[in-house]
Amino acid sequence: MQSKIVNFLKASQGYISGEEISRQLKVSRAGIWKYIQELRHAGYDIVAVPHLGYKLVSSPDKLLAHEIQFGLNTKTFGKKVIYYESITSTMEPAFRLGVEGEAEGTVVCAESQTKGKGRLGRSWVSPKGKGIYMSVVLRPPLAPAQASQVTLLSAVAVCEAVNLSCSVNAKIKWPNDILVNDRKLAGILTELNAEMDCVRFLVVGIGINVNTPLGLLPEHSTSLKHELKKHINRIEVLREILRRLEFWCDTLRSPEGFQLVIQRWKELSMTIGRRVRVLDASGEVEGEAVDLDKNGGLVIRHDSGITMKRMSGDVVQVR
Amino acid sequence: MQSKIVNFLKASQGYISGEEISRQLKVSRAGIWKYIQELRHAGYDIVAVPHLGYKLVSSPDKLLAHEIQFGLNTKTFGKKVIYYESITSTMEPAFRLGVEGEAEGTVVCAESQTKGKGRLGRSWVSPKGKGIYMSVVLRPPLAPAQASQVTLLSAVAVCEAVNLSCSVNAKIKWPNDILVNDRKLAGILTELNAEMDCVRFLVVGIGINVNTPLGLLPEHSTSLKHELKKHINRIEVLREILRRLEFWCDTLRSPEGFQLVIQRWKELSMTIGRRVRVLDASGEVEGEAVDLDKNGGLVIRHDSGITMKRMSGDVVQVR
Repeated sequence: MQSKIVNFLKASQGYISGEEISRQLKVSRAGIWKYIQELRHAGYDIVAVPHLGYKLVSSPDKLLAHEIQFGLNTKTFGKKVIYYESITSTMEPAFRLGVEGEAEGTVVCAESQTKGKGRLGRSWVSPKGKGIYMSVVLRPPLAPAQASQVTLLSAVAVCEAVNLSCSVNAKIKWPNDILVNDRKLAGILTELNAEMDCVRFLVVGIGINVNTPLGLLPEHSTSLKHELKKHINRIEVLREILRRLEFWCDTLRSPEGFQLVIQRWKELSMTIGRRVRVLDASGEVEGEAVDLDKNGGLVIRHDSGITMKRMSGDVVQVR
Repeated sequence: MQSKIVNFLKASQGYISGEEISRQLKVSRAGIWKYIQELRHAGYDIVAVPHLGYKLVSSPDKLLAHEIQFGLNTKTFGKKVIYYESITSTMEPAFRLGVEGEAEGTVVCAESQTKGKGRLGRSWVSPKGKGIYMSVVLRPPLAPAQASQVTLLSAVAVCEAVNLSCSVNAKIKWPNDILVNDRKLAGILTELNAEMDCVRFLVVGIGINVNTPLGLLPEHSTSLKHELKKHINRIEVLREILRRLEFWCDTLRSPEGFQLVIQRWKELSMTIGRRVRVLDASGEVEGEAVDLDKNGGLVIRHDSGITMKRMSGDVVQVR
């Protein structure tokens, strides 16, 4: 009911009377008043003027379910949002939901994470109310060996979403970092649960530095606020991520869908064509990043002319 | 303390006095009596004769932790056993334990499963007290794409364990069925939890028809009792499985370890060199199964001379 009243206030031009809300939502005047009080408590600035009614002045800067869902226009992504003020990592409840059979597109998001996770056991700095910290349950029909397709897909979706909603020129650094002006803006983490023959579900974790002060972030990081010199509405970025994720997950299910993902990934990539040094468990290799193979591996041409492939690791772009 | 008393009784020749047990285990005579009553209730046949003491006549035919651990002689496998009289599937608690960080080698076993799981969403018939239904937590240092190594390894371990403990001639049918005289004796299921770059843990589920009446089993199945025309001690088979699993998991960690697994798999295989028809999501292919590739895929030579590879699916051995 709270979310219905918020949507009602948002859809209204100017003031709307309590009587009108009461009639349309079939709630008593006293009930409306109680919900308005609760919304104010949650951070909504709602003005009440005698004989005029209520008016929504501003919404709280929080990743609340009904804020995300307002005007979202997706089919399934974000239809269910689980919100935490604070959590260890959004990956944990999301993974549990996956085990319990939660549908594709369900989102877990939080205002802050006490143990935000990055790739390879690293942490993700997650100060309260500053960034987007979210995990999404996905159920693509893939074998475990193809799961990296989803990492590439997610990088494309997040990169496009940031560019569309904020007019920046974000690029993808292999395998799944999102950079603006050569500095890290967002990271993507993928965890999977599978049988030998098929993935049961994946959880994609997305961390974005939106209004995060650079002083709190690791070296070579940036935030949308820093790049654009203004406070950014996290909700709009989050909604666009869900729309692009849904689009690309639909695309992946079509014939040749993954070829379209790879093609788009290459367009958005800042790695292909660059000289790179890749460090992984097997050691270090330097050369030109010439291509992405059909499984999402990075193809590197060594100066000797030999080409090598790396499925994971860290990339240093040499020039 | 119950398990200490059982081990004490097992280690004794003939009768042992309550006084002796009481002194060595530092428990009161009344305490000993209470534990003996509990053990009898659990199915142990313990005789008590005045002036002689206690004697263990027989142990219950159950997969109890201290029965499995007696004389096990492994380093880590089976050091922790979680036992259920009945459970949906041993995979469920085992997977939960994996998520919670449980160590490699921890075993979940059950007398019966109400939703025993097979590969590809199939069920596994699990009548009470008749078969071995177990799941083991493994933590090999692998990438998700290499996880099929563990399926092959588990098939080798189970096949060897059955042959060693029961003197049958079990063979492996690709990818992970154990057959005796061309009929299915055991099945292996592998589930994994991974990040993109590394497997966090795997759970290997093993189902074996030990004393199961053929009338309860699907077509083309067999049981150890049926093959050997006698009741089989499940505990001995289970212990041997844990020993062989530990051996092969250690082997996998050594350089060239997986080559040794593949080599042994081929020795035990009834698929390589045979004419097969493989059905998977991509359709059907018929030809000669000529080899196992380095990732555990089956290499099939079509009559046209073309060789193809299959990573999963069902094999029908044509001749």
